[in-house]
Amino acid sequence: MTDQLASALASFDLLLAVYLVAITAEAMSGALAAGRRNMDIFGVAVIAFVTALGGGTIRDVTLGNYPIGWTQHPEYVYLVLGAGLLTTLVARYLHRLQRLFLVLDALGLVAFSLIGCSVALNLGYAPMVVILSGMITGICGGILRDVLCNQVPIVFCRELYASVSLLVCALFLIMRSWGIDSDINTLLCFIIGFSFRLLALRHGWRLPTFSYHGRWD
Amino acid sequence: MTDQLASALASFDLLLAVYLVAITAEAMSGALAAGRRNMDIFGVAVIAFVTALGGGTIRDVTLGNYPIGWTQHPEYVYLVLGAGLLTTLVARYLHRLQRLFLVLDALGLVAFSLIGCSVALNLGYAPMVVILSGMITGICGGILRDVLCNQVPIVFCRELYASVSLLVCALFLIMRSWGIDSDINTLLCFIIGFSFRLLALRHGWRLPTFSYHGRWD
Amino acid sequence: MTDQLASALASFDLLLAVYLVAITAEAMSGALAAGRRNMDIFGVAVIAFVTALGGGTIRDVTLGNYPIGWTQHPEYVYLVLGAGLLTTLVARYLHRLQRLFLVLDALGLVAFSLIGCSVALNLGYAPMVVILSGMITGICGGILRDVLCNQVPIVFCRELYASVSLLVCALFLIMRSWGIDSDINTLLCFIIGFSFRLLALRHGWRLPTFSYHGRWD
Repeated sequence: MTDQLASALASFDLLLAVYLVAITAEAMSGALAAGRRNMDIFGVAVIAFVTALGGGTIRDVTLGNYPIGWTQHPEYVYLVLGAGLLTTLVARYLHRLQRLFLVLDALGLVAFSLIGCSVALNLGYAPMVVILSGMITGICGGILRDVLCNQVPIVFCRELYASVSLLVCALFLIMRSWGIDSDINTLLCFIIGFSFRLLALRHGWRLPTFSYHGRWD
Repeated sequence: MTDQLASALASFDLLLAVYLVAITAEAMSGALAAGRRNMDIFGVAVIAFVTALGGGTIRDVTLGNYPIGWTQHPEYVYLVLGAGLLTTLVARYLHRLQRLFLVLDALGLVAFSLIGCSVALNLGYAPMVVILSGMITGICGGILRDVLCNQVPIVFCRELYASVSLLVCALFLIMRSWGIDSDINTLLCFIIGFSFRLLALRHGWRLPTFSYHGRWD
Repeated sequence: MTDQLASALASFDLLLAVYLVAITAEAMSGALAAGRRNMDIFGVAVIAFVTALGGGTIRDVTLGNYPIGWTQHPEYVYLVLGAGLLTTLVARYLHRLQRLFLVLDALGLVAFSLIGCSVALNLGYAPMVVILSGMITGICGGILRDVLCNQVPIVFCRELYASVSLLVCALFLIMRSWGIDSDINTLLCFIIGFSFRLLALRHGWRLPTFSYHGRWD
C-alpha cells in the first residue's frame, strides 16, 4: 500500500499540475484584459487562449517542434476557454483575489520557463537557444495579449518579470551542467524564481528604463 | 456531349471558385483599411496580401502544413496584389457595392472555414483542432490586418462573424460524423452559414460584450 | 603568398560581413525605437532582437526552413543583444551618426533581400515566392518592431524602402536567369539597390499614397 502510494505520488507530475494552474490563471488575466477593451465573449475567448497558450505556440513554431503542444491536448484548450468565459461571470469578485492571482502567475512564469527550456534541450539546441526558448514560453503569451489589445506590451516596462524568466532558465542550465538531479533542480528553480518574483513585486523592483527623444529615425 | 458537360461541371471546383472570389474580396477590404491609414501603395499591397492570405498562412504554420498554400500557387498572390492595387483606383465607386461586398465576405467566411477544417482533417488532427483550424483560416486574416493598421481587431467586437465560422465548422464535423456525403455537407454548410451571417448583419446580432474596469492588473 | 592572399580574400564572405554590420545597425535602430517608448532594458533587448532577426525568422517559418537561422548561430544573438544594450549607453551621441546609420541600413536592406532570395532558391520555390522571401527578410523586422511599439509600420508610409527590396530581388532573379556569375550579380545588386535607396532618401522619393475615408467598413 505504501509502495502504491509512493508510486502514485511519484507519477503525479508536479510540473504539469503547476502548468495547468498557470494556463488557467493566464487565461483569466487575458479575459480581464479583453474586458478592459469591451470585447465580446468571442474576443474574450481568443485573448484567453492566446495569453495562455500563445507563448508555447510561438516557441514550438520557432523551434520547429511539430505538432504544436495544444493540438495534441484539446483538454488544455477547453480549460483555457472555460477559464476565460468563466471570468466574465465572476470578474466582479476577482479583485479580492488579486494576491492569489499574482502568486499563481509567478508560479506559472517559472513553470513556463522550465518547460520551454526542456523542449529546446530535448531538440538538441544550444544553451543560448534553450534560454531564449524558456523566455519565449514565459513571456510571449502576454506580449500577444497586449498587441491584440492594442497596447505596448507591459512586460517591456514593468516590475521584473522577464528577468525572473531569464534567471530561472540560466539557473536551470547551470545546475544541470553541474549534474544536479533534475527534480531537485526544478524544485530549486521554483523556490528561487518564485521568491525573486514576489520580492520584485513587493518592493517594486524594476529594470532601468531607456528614454530616447532624438528627432531622427 | 452531355457526359462531357456533366464531367466538366463536376470537375469545376465550386469551393475553389468561391475561395478565389473570397480572397479577392478580402484583399479589397484590406486595401480599404490601408487607405484609412493613408498608406502608400506598397502598404496597400501588404495589407491586401495579409488580409486575404494571412489566415491560411497562420493555419499552415500552426499545423505544420508545409509548404504553405500560397507558396505553391503564385497566381493567388498575383490575384490578391492586383485586387488590392485596383482598389486604390476604384475606391470612390465602391461604396455603391457595399452590399455585394458583404455578401462576398460572407461567402468567403464559410469557404475559408470549410477549407481550414479540411486541411486539419487531412493531417489527422483531433476535432477541437479541426474546428480551431477552420476558425483560424476564417478570422486571422482580418486580425492581422487590424493589428498592422494599429487598431483592436474588429472581429472581437462586431456582429456575429467568428460565431458563424464556429457554427460552420461544428456543423461540418457533425454532419461528417453522420456519414453525410461531402458535397451535400459542404452545400448545407454554405446555405446555413451564409444565411446566419446575413441575418446577423441585417438584425445587428451581436454576442454579449464583457466590460471590466477594475483598477488592478 | 599571393595565392594565399587571393584565397583568403575569396573565402572572406562579403555578404556575411555586410549581414553582420546590418543586423548590428538594425538592432541599434530597434533600441532607439524602444527608447522612444520608455521601455526598460529588457524591452530594449527584445525590440533589438526582433528588429534585427525577426525578418529572417518570419521568412524561415513561412518557408518551413528549419532550424531557423539564429538558433544555429548564437553569436548573432549575442551581437544584436549587445548592440541593443550598448545603444542605451551611447544614444546621446548617435544623432551625429545619423548619416552613417542610413548608409548601413541601406546596405543591410540589400543584404537581407539577397539572403532571403538565396534561401528560397535553395529550397526550390517559384520566382514569385523567391522575391517575397527576399522582401520578407528585408522588411518584416521593422514591421515587428513597429507593431510591438504600437504604431503603424513606417515601411507602409515612408520613402522608398520596400520598393528597393523588390527591385533588388527582381534584378537578382533576372540576372541569374541570364546566367550572370553569382558574385557579379550580387555586386551589381548592391551597387544598384544601394544607390537607389540613397537617391530615394536624398530626394524624398515616395510611392503614391492611398487615402480612403468612406464611412462603411
